[in-house]
Amino acid sequence: MIDTTSVEVEQLVSDAHQALVPLAERGHAWRSHLLRSMAEHFEGSAPAIVEVAEQETRLGAPRLDYEVRRTCFQLRLMAEVVDEGSWLDCVIDHPSQSAMGELPDLRRMQVPRGVIGIFGASNFPLASSVPGSDTASAIAAGCPVVIKAHPGHPVTSSLCFDLLKVAADSVGAPEGMLSLVSGFDAGVALVESQRLAAVGFTGSRAGGEALFRRCSARPVPIPFYGELGAANPLVVTEGAAGARHLEIAQGLARALTQGSGQFCTKPGLCFLPSGPDGDQLVTELVAALKAIGPLPMLNGSIEGSYLQARARLGALSEVGSLVSGSTDESGTTPTLLETNAEHFSNASGTALLEECFGPIGVVVRYGSVEELFAALETAEPALCFSVFSEPDEAISAALLALGATKAGRVLHDRYPPGAPLSWAMVHGGPFPATTAAEATSMGAASLGRWLRPVAFQNVPDHLLPIELKEENLLDLPRRVDSKIVV
Amino acid sequence: MIDTTSVEVEQLVSDAHQALVPLAERGHAWRSHLLRSMAEHFEGSAPAIVEVAEQETRLGAPRLDYEVRRTCFQLRLMAEVVDEGSWLDCVIDHPSQSAMGELPDLRRMQVPRGVIGIFGASNFPLASSVPGSDTASAIAAGCPVVIKAHPGHPVTSSLCFDLLKVAADSVGAPEGMLSLVSGFDAGVALVESQRLAAVGFTGSRAGGEALFRRCSARPVPIPFYGELGAANPLVVTEGAAGARHLEIAQGLARALTQGSGQFCTKPGLCFLPSGPDGDQLVTELVAALKAIGPLPMLNGSIEGSYLQARARLGALSEVGSLVSGSTDESGTTPTLLETNAEHFSNASGTALLEECFGPIGVVVRYGSVEELFAALETAEPALCFSVFSEPDEAISAALLALGATKAGRVLHDRYPPGAPLSWAMVHGGPFPATTAAEATSMGAASLGRWLRPVAFQNVPDHLLPIELKEENLLDLPRRVDSKIVV
Repeated sequence: MIDTTSVEVEQLVSDAHQALVPLAERGHAWRSHLLRSMAEHFEGSAPAIVEVAEQETRLGAPRLDYEVRRTCFQLRLMAEVVDEGSWLDCVIDHPSQSAMGELPDLRRMQVPRGVIGIFGASNFPLASSVPGSDTASAIAAGCPVVIKAHPGHPVTSSLCFDLLKVAADSVGAPEGMLSLVSGFDAGVALVESQRLAAVGFTGSRAGGEALFRRCSARPVPIPFYGELGAANPLVVTEGAAGARHLEIAQGLARALTQGSGQFCTKPGLCFLPSGPDGDQLVTELVAALKAIGPLPMLNGSIEGSYLQARARLGALSEVGSLVSGSTDESGTTPTLLETNAEHFSNASGTALLEECFGPIGVVVRYGSVEELFAALETAEPALCFSVFSEPDEAISAALLALGATKAGRVLHDRYPPGAPLSWAMVHGGPFPATTAAEATSMGAASLGRWLRPVAFQNVPDHLLPIELKEENLLDLPRRVDSKIVV
Repeated sequence: MIDTTSVEVEQLVSDAHQALVPLAERGHAWRSHLLRSMAEHFEGSAPAIVEVAEQETRLGAPRLDYEVRRTCFQLRLMAEVVDEGSWLDCVIDHPSQSAMGELPDLRRMQVPRGVIGIFGASNFPLASSVPGSDTASAIAAGCPVVIKAHPGHPVTSSLCFDLLKVAADSVGAPEGMLSLVSGFDAGVALVESQRLAAVGFTGSRAGGEALFRRCSARPVPIPFYGELGAANPLVVTEGAAGARHLEIAQGLARALTQGSGQFCTKPGLCFLPSGPDGDQLVTELVAALKAIGPLPMLNGSIEGSYLQARARLGALSEVGSLVSGSTDESGTTPTLLETNAEHFSNASGTALLEECFGPIGVVVRYGSVEELFAALETAEPALCFSVFSEPDEAISAALLALGATKAGRVLHDRYPPGAPLSWAMVHGGPFPATTAAEATSMGAASLGRWLRPVAFQNVPDHLLPIELKEENLLDLPRRVDSKIVV
């Protein structure tokens, strides 16, 4: 792909802005139809997509097949959400008397924010990239999109974009609604573009933070919904280590190496108890990781970053090595490092707290509940926080409560990779996991990022948006005079 | 009040953070009881509050009485919202089969963000200050608050805070949940405080923007919900000018001078048609404004800023004067300026686009629909956008649709001052009206700013938060397996 110039980017954003009104005029049912049509076109071209993505990444066909399915699932989930209509948050207050005198006829709904700039991830070249969750949710919300192609998979990006475009054209989408730009400078021009309303981003902390700061520093600041990844804590209690050390060791080994450890939901920090049960769990975890052969890293650039990060972690004086991974042409074998809770509690500002993208885990051994909680307080907010405990252990509730202050998803006896796509899903968390803790970048609620509310006061019925007219013509869930009417 | 030192601020924020868990433990019903108790304490001390506020501002007793009522109404509305429970956004997905395989048990709810820093407004020393909408909504959301006293009404702030504190103590609120700080440096220390989770602000664009940029530039950025005011456009169509010029002229004169024009909802930019009907409207508006005697400005500082801003506007070469206001000890008489749509369309970057706080309006005469829309496109986003038109005029729908892209509240045949407090209310809008277009700082939805979602995966029922247990013990509206259950 040839780099897009900043003049071209400005034009594409402007064209996308022009598409806002015609897009709104086509209505919600049209948009859900468009999303389903995109899923169909995608499925129809699955072999071609997988073939191209296999050439640009080392993910392999099974994983890429899974991503095609996930991409289509997301598009259809968004179509279902659009049809259901709760996202419009329609609220109707008829005139009424109150302690403040007469309250007027006031009706609220969500409207699209405007043109969304989207930066996809390297590690999910389909499901979190051009045709991914950000694109699907922005279109669902009625927002035109300008997508920045990831340099790690430019041809895949281009092919995916063409398929989205064909699907859009097949149902008569307005011109300018979708576009693709390429190149580092084009990305900067995109977030600086005057007409852009918001940004969706999935990627590294360094890149995400830089773009976030740019968006906030604009003369007209715009929101930046960045998912920057995390070193997701996972705690095993004394009780769970005693009762299930082998099962947990094997599960943890899988969770650390699934997708070669290149998931933003990898539980990179494993808090395990001291003592014989913890020792046993560590021994079994070491054995399970040593039994795993070389794993392919996404691409050469990611491999390079991983080797640097691994070396930085290993060089910390408080960190010992349990499994020493190696890297050659056949891939990278897993690494397991170890420290203790006391060291971890003093690790603020060091690599120990950061996400390390790849097949690596850090075991943090704790000698007491106090040590554990002090260490967990030091851990940075994350996307996921997992607790393995026995049902009757008193510590379980406190750990889950702490997890809820530290992450957007709290798991019990489950490993976080494989983020489920459903109505309740939250893929988010306080900074630095994301730049907007109030949002989720996956699941039914993900289109909330691209909306803002507008209230209409005393507007005659014939001039109200169809969603807010007295007669509920679209059969939407609405709140009328403070009561939900489904 | 003595200025709070930055060390003291840090300690107060830290104490507030400690109050998070005990506050959560007291539950929702306790919080709504607290909010109602605050309203009662406030009402009980109304005469004392009004007396103090009368000494610190020139608002006068009738207006301050109204503010006491509004403050109590807000507190009780928040109590009602807390009890209703929709704000928790409880979503329960039971395990199910999907095209992506088995989806797990996943349950989502909203949780408090943490400690909120609050900066109140000068123009509403009660309803948008210490005991105002930001404080009420943050407490409703379960967030401890650290409030910065406004220098324009320090004694009122202190008295209001004491009343909140007495009410809180009377129902056994956790220590540290509420505190008040004072002084410019304390405000800076507050937004820089490590433990602060978010900021609510109502005030000037310059002050708000400076604090917003600080919040975004922190090592750990935090959201800043700033309501910065706006020059709210109001359009009168040819038809409306023809049919109702006198009625509109008189209403507009009231809207421009209500509260001495010191409302952030004042319709400061009035787009009126050229031609005889528009001329007639202007003549009647001029007469109505000339009949209004001197109005008290809030305080000396606001008066000084107003005189500067008025002089800056009047000095623009494209702006003529229709009513020339004067200021002496008895107050300030209204000012009306005039320009045309063509000049306005080129006014980007000038004072013409800015809010001018005080009894002043700018009339923008338009000669054609094209001229009108070009000028409206130039107007900055606002809190309110008002349209006066005849029901059958074709232009009505286009104007309302444009308004929805430019403001958080769109009114038909109504003047925006007197922001109604109800479920559908939106007091917000795209930048520069606010720094977070997705939010409202008034009405039932205002507590949404202080929440973030958390999902719980595979958590046993006895360890789930009460809101998400299988049995709906709090009788909350919830979404279960994608369906709303009320």
